[in-house]
Order: sequence, then C-alpha cells, then structure tokens
Amino acid sequence: MISVVILGAGNVATHLFRGFSLAENVSVTQWYSRNLTTVEQYKNEVDITDDLSDLKVADVYIIAVSDDAVAKLSSKLEFENRMVVHTSGSVGIYDLDKKHNRGVFYPLQSFTKGAAMDFANVPICIETVDKKSYPLLKTLAKNLGSPVQKVNSDQRRVLHLAAVFVNNFTNQLYRIGHEITESEGAEFDMLKPLIVETAKKIEDLSPYRAQTGPAKRHDKKTIKKHLKQLDDNNHHKAVYELLTKSIQKTHGRKKL
Amino acid sequence: MISVVILGAGNVATHLFRGFSLAENVSVTQWYSRNLTTVEQYKNEVDITDDLSDLKVADVYIIAVSDDAVAKLSSKLEFENRMVVHTSGSVGIYDLDKKHNRGVFYPLQSFTKGAAMDFANVPICIETVDKKSYPLLKTLAKNLGSPVQKVNSDQRRVLHLAAVFVNNFTNQLYRIGHEITESEGAEFDMLKPLIVETAKKIEDLSPYRAQTGPAKRHDKKTIKKHLKQLDDNNHHKAVYELLTKSIQKTHGRKKL
Repeated sequence: MISVVILGAGNVATHLFRGFSLAENVSVTQWYSRNLTTVEQYKNEVDITDDLSDLKVADVYIIAVSDDAVAKLSSKLEFENRMVVHTSGSVGIYDLDKKHNRGVFYPLQSFTKGAAMDFANVPICIETVDKKSYPLLKTLAKNLGSPVQKVNSDQRRVLHLAAVFVNNFTNQLYRIGHEITESEGAEFDMLKPLIVETAKKIEDLSPYRAQTGPAKRHDKKTIKKHLKQLDDNNHHKAVYELLTKSIQKTHGRKKL
Repeated sequence: MISVVILGAGNVATHLFRGFSLAENVSVTQWYSRNLTTVEQYKNEVDITDDLSDLKVADVYIIAVSDDAVAKLSSKLEFENRMVVHTSGSVGIYDLDKKHNRGVFYPLQSFTKGAAMDFANVPICIETVDKKSYPLLKTLAKNLGSPVQKVNSDQRRVLHLAAVFVNNFTNQLYRIGHEITESEGAEFDMLKPLIVETAKKIEDLSPYRAQTGPAKRHDKKTIKKHLKQLDDNNHHKAVYELLTKSIQKTHGRKKL
C-alpha cells in the first residue's frame, strides 16, 4: 500500500484524489489546502488540513498547486528526505527544495472541473532526481490505470508546449469554426463528427500524412474564395493566412 | 429502390459507392470515370463506363469530381430534366447546368483513401432547386445511415470554410506538436489522448467554455517561457503568438 498526501485543491489535485480513491493499493492519508473550505466536502473521506506543521507521514507528497507556488510550498514543508513531487509541465524538478527526495508526476491531460476522467487516457510523465525512486512513482501511476513514461525536464517542457498547440490552440480553431458557422445561421454541430474524425485519424497516420485541403493542394481558387468570405473579419483572415502558409511550408511546393 | 449513377472516381465517389453498395434500398446502376482504369477494379460489382453518351437512366446522377470540373461535366450530360447533384462544399447549386433538376449532396467529412468510413459519422448537407426533390435526396442520405441537414448555399460555403479551420488547420497544429516534441526526443504519441479528449470535450461544452491554458489565463510568465523555447523557429513562434492573441481576443482581459 502506497500512502499519499495531496497538497493543493485545484483540478489536478481533485482528479488525483478521485483517482487514488479508486485505486486498490494507494491510500490518501491526508489532503492539504491552505484554504480549508475548498476541500471541506471531502472531510468524511479523507483527513483534511490547512496546517503544514500538521502533515502526516506518507510515502509520497504530491504538490498540485499553481506553477508559481510549487517552489515555495516545497521549501515550507517541515520534514526532509521524503519523496516530494510536483505535477507541473513547466516547473523544473530542481525547483523543489533540495532537502526532499525530488520527483515529477505530470499528468499530460486537460482536466475539466466536475467532469470525471478515466486515467487510462492520462499518460503520466515521471522524472526523479534519485533513480531509485522511479519504481515507486511508476507503481503509483499504474495504480491509477495510467500509461507511464519516463520523461526528463527538457522533454516535459516540450510536451507542455506542444500540448498548448494541440489542446488550447486547437480548441480556439473550434471556436473560430463556431463563430464562422453561426454567423450564417449554419449549425456548428454539423462539424462535430469531422472534428472527432480529425483527432482519431492521427492515431494511425502521422499528421504529415493526414493533411488534406486547399492549402496542401495549393488550390489558389478556393483559398481566394475563402479569404474573400473572411473579408469582414481581419482576425480570422490572419489565422487563415498564417496556417495556410504553415501547411505550405510543411508540404512544400505543388508538384507540377 | 433508388437508382444512382456515380460520376467521378476520387475519394468521395469511392466512399459513396461503398456506402450505397451496403444500402438496402439503393442500387448503383453505373459508375462513370473519364479514365476507366480508375474504376476497373469494381467492374464485377457495377457497370462501369468512360463514355458519357452511354449513361443509363437513373433516379439520381451524383457528380463527385474536382470543384473546377463540376459545371462542365454537368453541361456535357446528354439528357435533361433528371436529378443531377454535385458533392462539393464550395461549388454553387446554380453552377450545375440548368437543363437538369439540380441539387447538392455534400458529405461534411474528411475521407481518407483506403480507410473505411462509417456514414453515421458523415452529415449530408442537402440543397435542391426544386423543393419537391428534397425528399428523394433525404431518403438517399438516410439509406447511407447519415444524419441529414437542409443547408442553403451560403450555409454550405461557411461550413466548408469552417471545416478548413477545424480539420486542415487543426491537423497542422498536430503537425507542429509533432515537430516540437520530436525535436527534443519526446514522444508525440504521449499527446494523442489529449488530442482525442480535446475533440470530445466540445460535444458537451461550447469551444468558448472548453478553453483553458496560459493564453486564456493571461499567464505572462508561461507564455514568455514558451516563446523563448520557440526562439529557434520563427514560424512556430508566429503561430503561437497569433493564436494566443486570438484566444485573448475571444476571452477578453484578465479579471483582476
């Protein structure tokens, strides 16, 4: 049985708490939040506290707070030589106080408040300063049912950056699609099967091979038509132009 | 039983042929291609021809050729007053020769050569000049198992444009994610669950509400870090900057 203390009360902390509660070989010993009301609803399931000097002994302390607060919180922990990990994609492992046995336990997924998350779809990126600690974190992730990957800090940083492209920026393209369709009274819902298909397509095909459309075909006539349609929205037009250029940069000149 | 003649031998034509072959109440009477070798492999399943003067009588003629070729092919058909539809998102219904009973049968999906397509995931956008013809096309689409929507030419054009954003441009963001991760020896595969989750999230939530990340949070520190990581690729940097701006334009200033 692995004992865990969770520190923080945001989305990641809450999803981890739910995940560990379902795990057979993990017990959450305690849940810390500086603001007790945020975790009060769980007080019948787990020991809660807002007092760092009151933290119990556990195998792993998981710091799941905002990026800026990780380092400071880790140094405020009053014990030494215990396993302390953070869950951030962009904070370095050495930002944790060196009095701890340091690690990273980064779930590569976008958590939504309220919505349940199947951890089978949440790869956990693990890094440890002391490689002897890796198996413990791996077992912890496996108990969630998650795929596990050893990922160093540089790799984690690029995964976090790439996640912004494939998650935040992609979602913004959905938003633009929404604005464009609604502007003509067309239904955005009609695009949803295409959106899911686009995501699923790259499970078997590289994004390079999966690319289609007027930009890749250098279909100037259609591109011109589209730009004309976007004439009353310079902003959408700029996105269209830049991503068309981006596709053409990736795929090169049209074959004659 | 609805009889159909397919004209063209590209992705859409081939997928429609497969779809209709499985449909109970549709029979494909003939398949025309100007280049017979492209459809020769189907000659035991359907009558094939490369001769427009040899076309048989059918309830519906489906022109599934490149956008530029639709108008000309429709005018070369040697009969009149029969139902002739095209399958293009961006060609007008009046581009079909007016001697025909004109319609549009636009499948809003991205077809991949070779990969099977479940037509339940392919909304068909239907438009007819003569509204009495609508039920026939609707029945045809229903026979494929597809959702059907009446869509006028303006709506179809914005759906086609929006499809470029949510399909082609989204796929290019996947490609950039691929380039970024591979550059550090991280695995793009790790991002696939996030990609699928991002697409699925908007089934219940509007893209507006689904947005997360540093751009929406106006998290200047993370944005600055990311831009620095992209310093050796001006192109990726430009995409990052523009889409960050786009998200901030949609979601407004940070609440203080």
